[in-house]
Amino acid sequence: MKIKKEVPKIKAHTYYHTFNTENKREYINMTDIVRRQLKESGITEGMMLVSAMHITASVYVNDAESGLIEDIDNWLQKLAPEGPDYNHHRTGEVNGDAHLKNLLMHNQTVLPVTGGRLDLGPWQQIYYAEFDGQRPKKVIIKIIGE
Amino acid sequence: MKIKKEVPKIKAHTYYHTFNTENKREYINMTDIVRRQLKESGITEGMMLVSAMHITASVYVNDAESGLIEDIDNWLQKLAPEGPDYNHHRTGEVNGDAHLKNLLMHNQTVLPVTGGRLDLGPWQQIYYAEFDGQRPKKVIIKIIGE
Amino acid sequence: MKIKKEVPKIKAHTYYHTFNTENKREYINMTDIVRRQLKESGITEGMMLVSAMHITASVYVNDAESGLIEDIDNWLQKLAPEGPDYNHHRTGEVNGDAHLKNLLMHNQTVLPVTGGRLDLGPWQQIYYAEFDGQRPKKVIIKIIGE
Repeated sequence: MKIKKEVPKIKAHTYYHTFNTENKREYINMTDIVRRQLKESGITEGMMLVSAMHITASVYVNDAESGLIEDIDNWLQKLAPEGPDYNHHRTGEVNGDAHLKNLLMHNQTVLPVTGGRLDLGPWQQIYYAEFDGQRPKKVIIKIIGE
Repeated sequence: MKIKKEVPKIKAHTYYHTFNTENKREYINMTDIVRRQLKESGITEGMMLVSAMHITASVYVNDAESGLIEDIDNWLQKLAPEGPDYNHHRTGEVNGDAHLKNLLMHNQTVLPVTGGRLDLGPWQQIYYAEFDGQRPKKVIIKIIGE
Repeated sequence: MKIKKEVPKIKAHTYYHTFNTENKREYINMTDIVRRQLKESGITEGMMLVSAMHITASVYVNDAESGLIEDIDNWLQKLAPEGPDYNHHRTGEVNGDAHLKNLLMHNQTVLPVTGGRLDLGPWQQIYYAEFDGQRPKKVIIKIIGE
């Protein structure tokens, strides 16, 4: 007698998205990219990590409103300004400010998945924030659950 | 012959809590709310996401000490001040500062669950920080594990 | 007839690491500690939480470059300065700044685990940032997956 066991393992889905922005700093709504991966994963209950794989870019959740995005950029320029005076620049790099902006805004967000959908509030949109662009940079989307 | 299989799937528990604060800005210790949901879930090993579903509120982990909470509020007012000069206000909104406070403090925390209990250090308390209140706003508590 | 069932449960691995820094503020690369725990767990697909269990220390992901670490420390001293004027100090504590630095840098990071390895970008290193050291303080490393 053979017993065929359906093995209900945890499901994992991994996707790498590459951004290559036109400008040094850019704010890109990536909610649709994230939703597409959730659909492809077939996962209905679990958690999703969206995380920049670089140290001069962030992933955050906030409003899709152009005035606010200008405010965020002005605010980051004030709290973590560009400038020549970073010790990091002794290495030949010129992006000290982009590292600090990354730390302020964080490189990642964790999203709940409930009943097959991204369980966000009505105004929550997922943004990729580039602070040192004009070259290919990756974001990982990883979903675990069932 | 019938073989009854106990299927040890990943468990998921989801709960939405609504806050409606009296003041515009408020800091509420929600550790007991979180613990109650962990108990209801029956999950003993896993991870817990506590995440504001709005873009003008945060969830953070720190001390339940009233002086420190005053310090946090003063600090946020300094680094992300209220004021008329936000581009976001062209939409008719007046809460530009609340969006920046949310970004600075983050909208979420992930908590470890070990042996059926919230695996926090002795001083770690979970706070809901409201930056634009006086209306109903939701927080999601999502636990996955087994 | 006995049917031995292999039960494919979610795996969980928990480890507590204690730091006891020589200096009040210190930045320690803990990537190797994290990798060792991933190997010990035997987990190949899942998520990993690395979280300070104290409210005056952070875990963050950024570059292992000494100039940048000086920049981060200078920046934190500017945005969340040491000083006598914190309300928190009415309790007899003198570490108000360390709490604010913790909030700015966050106490935790979530890391993706793919194909048995820590799924980080080429420059991403995991740091423990101590803001009120010279005593034993714990970090939890928790991995769930399969």
